[in-house]
Amino acid sequence: MGSLDDAKFTETSIVNNFNPLDPEEFRKQAYQTIDFIVDYYKNIETYPVLSQVEPGYLRNSLPTTPPFKPEPFEKILKDVRTQIIPGMTNWLSPNFFAYFPATVSTAGFIGEMLSTCFNSVGFNWLASPAATELEMVVMDWFADMLKLPRTFKFSGSGGGVIQGTTSEAILCTLVAARDRALDRIGGNNIGKLIVYGSDQTHSTFVKACKIAGILPGNVRSLPTTIDMDFSLSPYVVRAAVETDVANGFVPIYLCLTVGTTSSNAVDPIDQFSELASDYGTIWLHVDAAYAGSACICPEFRHYLNGIERVDSLSLSPHKWFLTYLDCCCLWVKNPSLLIRALSTNPEYLKNKPSELNLVVDYKDWQVGTGRKFRSLKLWLVLRSYGVENLQSHIRSDVRMAEMFEGFVRNDSQFEIVVPRRFALVCFRWNPDSGLVRNVELMNRKLLDWINSTGQVYMTHTIVGGVYMLRFAVGATLTEEPHVIAAWNLIKEGADALINAR
Amino acid sequence: MGSLDDAKFTETSIVNNFNPLDPEEFRKQAYQTIDFIVDYYKNIETYPVLSQVEPGYLRNSLPTTPPFKPEPFEKILKDVRTQIIPGMTNWLSPNFFAYFPATVSTAGFIGEMLSTCFNSVGFNWLASPAATELEMVVMDWFADMLKLPRTFKFSGSGGGVIQGTTSEAILCTLVAARDRALDRIGGNNIGKLIVYGSDQTHSTFVKACKIAGILPGNVRSLPTTIDMDFSLSPYVVRAAVETDVANGFVPIYLCLTVGTTSSNAVDPIDQFSELASDYGTIWLHVDAAYAGSACICPEFRHYLNGIERVDSLSLSPHKWFLTYLDCCCLWVKNPSLLIRALSTNPEYLKNKPSELNLVVDYKDWQVGTGRKFRSLKLWLVLRSYGVENLQSHIRSDVRMAEMFEGFVRNDSQFEIVVPRRFALVCFRWNPDSGLVRNVELMNRKLLDWINSTGQVYMTHTIVGGVYMLRFAVGATLTEEPHVIAAWNLIKEGADALINAR
Repeated sequence: MGSLDDAKFTETSIVNNFNPLDPEEFRKQAYQTIDFIVDYYKNIETYPVLSQVEPGYLRNSLPTTPPFKPEPFEKILKDVRTQIIPGMTNWLSPNFFAYFPATVSTAGFIGEMLSTCFNSVGFNWLASPAATELEMVVMDWFADMLKLPRTFKFSGSGGGVIQGTTSEAILCTLVAARDRALDRIGGNNIGKLIVYGSDQTHSTFVKACKIAGILPGNVRSLPTTIDMDFSLSPYVVRAAVETDVANGFVPIYLCLTVGTTSSNAVDPIDQFSELASDYGTIWLHVDAAYAGSACICPEFRHYLNGIERVDSLSLSPHKWFLTYLDCCCLWVKNPSLLIRALSTNPEYLKNKPSELNLVVDYKDWQVGTGRKFRSLKLWLVLRSYGVENLQSHIRSDVRMAEMFEGFVRNDSQFEIVVPRRFALVCFRWNPDSGLVRNVELMNRKLLDWINSTGQVYMTHTIVGGVYMLRFAVGATLTEEPHVIAAWNLIKEGADALINAR
Repeated sequence: MGSLDDAKFTETSIVNNFNPLDPEEFRKQAYQTIDFIVDYYKNIETYPVLSQVEPGYLRNSLPTTPPFKPEPFEKILKDVRTQIIPGMTNWLSPNFFAYFPATVSTAGFIGEMLSTCFNSVGFNWLASPAATELEMVVMDWFADMLKLPRTFKFSGSGGGVIQGTTSEAILCTLVAARDRALDRIGGNNIGKLIVYGSDQTHSTFVKACKIAGILPGNVRSLPTTIDMDFSLSPYVVRAAVETDVANGFVPIYLCLTVGTTSSNAVDPIDQFSELASDYGTIWLHVDAAYAGSACICPEFRHYLNGIERVDSLSLSPHKWFLTYLDCCCLWVKNPSLLIRALSTNPEYLKNKPSELNLVVDYKDWQVGTGRKFRSLKLWLVLRSYGVENLQSHIRSDVRMAEMFEGFVRNDSQFEIVVPRRFALVCFRWNPDSGLVRNVELMNRKLLDWINSTGQVYMTHTIVGGVYMLRFAVGATLTEEPHVIAAWNLIKEGADALINAR
């Protein structure tokens, strides 16, 4: 392999036969890659779920400079197998129960391939009419599945946009809320603006606030308690808002969560309706990144009760809706506030449809300018499976989580710490029913023991001071036997640790 | 096709045989899709480059609700052909000369497929060691190709990260610069902070400033002139900085550009070194989104002279480096400032390698938490082609642009408006050598005429008050005959308009 030395850096020659997109070479390599991927999916259970490599494993083994001459495709694919896969924490493994699942599907993959194929940079309608309009269509479709009111649909008075992640969805709506307030009280008063979340709100909320210039001291992380299953109390919020207003501050944004990351707590949206009426300048956002997908099932839809009173809702299909990363749906009731905060109008992008206001230009709904054709994969998933199968997929995961919950409940050595609502079970090992003071340490050891086997990957959290294990069911390939095997492994670990005491 | 009516929304049944990732079904559909894509690439010249559809073409033809029952794959793929492709502005067409090219390659596509395949959510090292370390490796490789100093490399004292787009790269570095200043002068003084760019800086800079809470009145858009080919003068910047400092403001950020979007102007980085010394608190960022890729060729590297004095550099391989959207490389000299501004540390992500500071956790280098395995495609491109072919690819585009420039220069009806530096030619039709006063109108008409043929897509800009046509060479499939045909079409349009007068 050639390396990039200084001598070669002075040459200015052209390799005349370089053709990076020869269709038949493309077909051949793509077929080989598909076969490679199918093998990976078929063999995925043979790899450790949590990669067992040490820091530096790859950096220390690869060259420090890029090759000057091309390398054969077969060699590169072999290196993916021998150098990359060993360093993968395999999110697609059916034994992956950590964090939240990042679900996938054939339809999602096909959608990604087609989106990549077109490589359209859809910053405005003209640059990609199909990408813009399909996004509007699928966002209305998804709103329909969730039984959102017309105020969130393009066919009504609102609209939706696909962002990369929840972070961007929160940042964009927060900036819209911030600028609405600053327009009213004067741009120099950013120090007066207050935002609210709970101590269970995702960490990205605080980060979005920092990015948007909200003073760190003005980000209220309101306490939740185990009595209320860590959901946010409207009384706590009201008290905080009233205190802030009395002190001359300006409340601008409240981030509610349906399905928190730690324990799947749900903030009761409908109980914040009055707050929305009394303080009309507070932008209510609902982050339903994970659990929102479940609300396509009627039995879960009640968690969105009151959604007609909020200003925006975000939900990440890349979590529980089979679409691969990245894909976060954001619906807003008043797109003009978003556009006002985020629009740009450089000369080189000016065009008639935009100037005549006939179209949506999605660059004005997001942080960046360029954007991918993400709606294709959502369209593929919705059409390939239909609402019927997508509801089944959610229910199947929930039933497996119920089964696991049953195992825990029926074992006196273990306990459920917070009620299960979706497909996440928060539990802990408590062999001596709380008589020992080192329950946390025991659980830490148990988690290490489990993850070091490579057979299962789980993570932990601490909520209300309680250290607990998280068992998140839902990786696309997970079936009942995997859940049963995971439970047996957890038991085995507990026994081993007991015997070692 | 079923639709989502309320009766069905009350059912809670499970379809038991639903398997969204059956390997053989995956292989079959993926093969079909590859064949579909190969056909699209082979036939791409048969489609209009700029889509000729009217606003609403797709929204008005698709159902308003998602299907309840699954639809056959073949039907969906057929709809992509009959409903989506007609609404595509075909960025991959060899006759696409608009904006900047979004270049692609077989290796880039394979990289995207593999990245999708793994679907790892690499927020920290543990969640995906391979994704984290490969990104560190390719960022150092790319730095090596660009002959960046060690201060931008992990093997030195800096490091790089792959962002989605330039917008995020600018936003993240701006927030780091902002917080460094606020730490010094107090968090409540955001209204004192001033940032600088030129009137040619990409519109996303102003947007990033707005998002970060910089007061709109504190974003200095400094004038450039045609005498200096629209590059930023260090004297103009210094004068603005001195005035602001005298008025009690705090300068924090200067965005320089190598290859502006309108006309490929280059701000002379090395001439800002003194400013960096005299005002050490100004973060110097270089946006080389498009033209940075050319700097892997020694004959273009001088445009980065002085880069050792700046704080950060961003460059988007999805523009001119064959990697498909989205992929923006950002190098920073002082990662700790980035991390300080953007880090989060929720309990559910805590892990030993991170706590022991043994690893890079890329979530602390970006806006979001979740992130794709983007480095794979850059790795595939670098290895599959080698620096040799990548340099050739740049040179080949530049030579085609030179050829087009020659056509313009040799035709008395046309003129070059600003000097060509890379593969963008800015020119205008001036049939009566400036004697007519409606040159702008004539050029607008000419552009409409060209784009309405569907045979070629070009865009325009206005710089220094002059309306000009932009001819950006570099779509992956473009070859000399396409450039020659485009020039003939432009001439034909001009003749037609002359005859119609």
